[in-house]
Amino acid sequence: MLGRMPLKAVIIVCDGMADRPVRELGYSTPLEAADTPAMDYLADIGVCGIMDPISPGIPPGSDVANLAILGYDALKVYRGRGVFEALGAGLEVRPGDVAVRCNFATVRNGVIVDRRAGRLDCRPFEEALMEVSKRIGPDVEAVFKHTTEHRAVLLLRGYGLSRMVSDSDPHRTGAPVLKVKPLDGTPEAGRTADILNGLSEMYMEALKNHPENERRRRQGLPTADAVIFRGAGQLPEIRSLEELYGVKSAVVAGNALARGVCVSAGMEPIHVEGATGSADTNLKGKAETALRALERFDLVYVHVKGTDNLSHDGNVEGKVRMIERIDRQLVSRILDETSLREVHIALTADHTTPVSVRKHTGDPVPIAVAGPCVRRDDVKRFSERSCAVGGMGRIRGRDVMPILMNYLGRVGLVGA
Amino acid sequence: MLGRMPLKAVIIVCDGMADRPVRELGYSTPLEAADTPAMDYLADIGVCGIMDPISPGIPPGSDVANLAILGYDALKVYRGRGVFEALGAGLEVRPGDVAVRCNFATVRNGVIVDRRAGRLDCRPFEEALMEVSKRIGPDVEAVFKHTTEHRAVLLLRGYGLSRMVSDSDPHRTGAPVLKVKPLDGTPEAGRTADILNGLSEMYMEALKNHPENERRRRQGLPTADAVIFRGAGQLPEIRSLEELYGVKSAVVAGNALARGVCVSAGMEPIHVEGATGSADTNLKGKAETALRALERFDLVYVHVKGTDNLSHDGNVEGKVRMIERIDRQLVSRILDETSLREVHIALTADHTTPVSVRKHTGDPVPIAVAGPCVRRDDVKRFSERSCAVGGMGRIRGRDVMPILMNYLGRVGLVGA
Repeated sequence: MLGRMPLKAVIIVCDGMADRPVRELGYSTPLEAADTPAMDYLADIGVCGIMDPISPGIPPGSDVANLAILGYDALKVYRGRGVFEALGAGLEVRPGDVAVRCNFATVRNGVIVDRRAGRLDCRPFEEALMEVSKRIGPDVEAVFKHTTEHRAVLLLRGYGLSRMVSDSDPHRTGAPVLKVKPLDGTPEAGRTADILNGLSEMYMEALKNHPENERRRRQGLPTADAVIFRGAGQLPEIRSLEELYGVKSAVVAGNALARGVCVSAGMEPIHVEGATGSADTNLKGKAETALRALERFDLVYVHVKGTDNLSHDGNVEGKVRMIERIDRQLVSRILDETSLREVHIALTADHTTPVSVRKHTGDPVPIAVAGPCVRRDDVKRFSERSCAVGGMGRIRGRDVMPILMNYLGRVGLVGA
Repeated sequence: MLGRMPLKAVIIVCDGMADRPVRELGYSTPLEAADTPAMDYLADIGVCGIMDPISPGIPPGSDVANLAILGYDALKVYRGRGVFEALGAGLEVRPGDVAVRCNFATVRNGVIVDRRAGRLDCRPFEEALMEVSKRIGPDVEAVFKHTTEHRAVLLLRGYGLSRMVSDSDPHRTGAPVLKVKPLDGTPEAGRTADILNGLSEMYMEALKNHPENERRRRQGLPTADAVIFRGAGQLPEIRSLEELYGVKSAVVAGNALARGVCVSAGMEPIHVEGATGSADTNLKGKAETALRALERFDLVYVHVKGTDNLSHDGNVEGKVRMIERIDRQLVSRILDETSLREVHIALTADHTTPVSVRKHTGDPVPIAVAGPCVRRDDVKRFSERSCAVGGMGRIRGRDVMPILMNYLGRVGLVGA
């Protein structure tokens, strides 16, 4: 039977799910403390290991970590975060384009008093800023798009642009909106900085008397007085998963960044109603969507962001509950509805975010893979420690995709 | 608690401690045969693994191995041993300097009859050779310094020097002192060879009628007739641990080579009375010194050489006893006096030196790390075999420092 039917794969990545021993949990990790029968079943029937997203001890951002899990030499191909946010927002990005992440900010007397303008919904400003963006000049095209809450992306298209420019976001309150500066001596960086500084001024002008701001002022709400830029990026120079392995692949992710990384690898993003990229996300919807996608795609990448948010908040109990919800509503559902004779299911995290640290750290993460081709090991529970003695040993993030694609018979022979 | 107090780390490296099964020990390794309650406790409460100093199967010299454990790409940055000996001897070494290791040798009828001149104490010759060294020329400065027994270092400073020169040491008796030859076609290598050949002649001349040699001749002792050179080296091009991780670090090592490697990484060497770099070293003094250093430094590197010496001698019982002494006088003491809520303690070897082989081999070494951030595993004993199934899996030497610095929160995020 094996080798005759087309094998498929699902990879479930729970952002920042891996942790360290937590005192409040009796020195268990949240994953160990959580009741996770489906994850444990996956580990039981599968082969387990630990994975360093980049290499031992190195804490990765989510963009770099997901690039690595997709099989790329992440540190080598990474060219900034902005482009993934733009892709995740549904913008088409072409080689040469530069994308920056934007925040709406509240400014008083020349200094930023709220870098998120009270986390306002910035959609009412989108049209005005899009109009203004059109005036930036004949050689450059600018697209401004709202993403979530106070966040937006700005995409620049034209010849001679560079991602090597500084942020206008001072990353703290009490400071003015910064001038964007070129980070290298190229004319491209200088030109890109000039364009961004021009747009920064134009946006401030357009926001000054915007009706939505007047309404907010009347209601005593924080106003959106400036758009601040950070994380300029360009497309990583990578070949798509289809080129590399001949697979058709899709991504189910509420989080724009993770979705954007997958789109940069040629994966098709599938929208799920209520997939918010937060702890309240619609996990059942994601499971159903992933299962349906498996009919059309060889590989489905399911990303859950909530675990990371709760870790950054230091919310131990919330993280335990979120893991349990992922277990019941996502992992269990996918296991129930999938024939493990045809589908390989991989479960992992993109990095460790200890609730005690509230930041990404460089500890390894657990990984389990079940399916018809794996060499089942003795591990019976899915956790940081139990998987560490599994049959997969200690691998790197960039090994995950070749391992899965090998099971699917999609990796070409090297040599002869 | 975590994340608020500044976390620190101690790394204890026992040179050549790892071994293979030994017949006389009933096919246990010396580490398995030794009674090591402190090391076992460290393994019990910590996370364990095995570590390939460079990569599986590759036997490293102690210089390369310690460079790797400090986190560097050792094979790439290594530029010869002499420079570490010079640093270990307390000489200041600058980029461009070339340092060679020196032996005093006994010469009869033009051939070397003893490469170590009866392991004489060469201090009485130092002043005369230092005086001679000053005559080498206006463009080059030469510093000659005694280290231990018949050993010394020679440091050359000036423009246009190169480490790419051969040894004048024939590495066997019955051969003449060799001419130093350039190893590449650069003018720098040619010039450096000329300088070393000139000094070789001048040293022989100065030694000929040196009063200490006349005294030794009268007493029938081997004379110091020549200084033979080997292992020309230049500083590795590396960034210091402080630049890389923002930590202040110190090294406690009787062995000049290990100390020199650490100094090249910007660590402060701390002298311990009676730390000899041999089996008779003052381990209690090293423990107290390391504990005091922990008050001022974020990272303390403790190196014990004796285990390697005994391995090179094939001294099975001596190695077992030395390991037990390290356990009682060093590891136990550091464990007792350290709060594992604040300090991570790593224990490992820099390479395997089997007593049956009497040379460095490429087998992995055991490693254990205890401290507040680690994921404790099920390993209860510190040994080559028990650590091999630990939660750390199999790592490389260059992973050790990022793993420790990650626990200390000192590794920057890659990506965003």
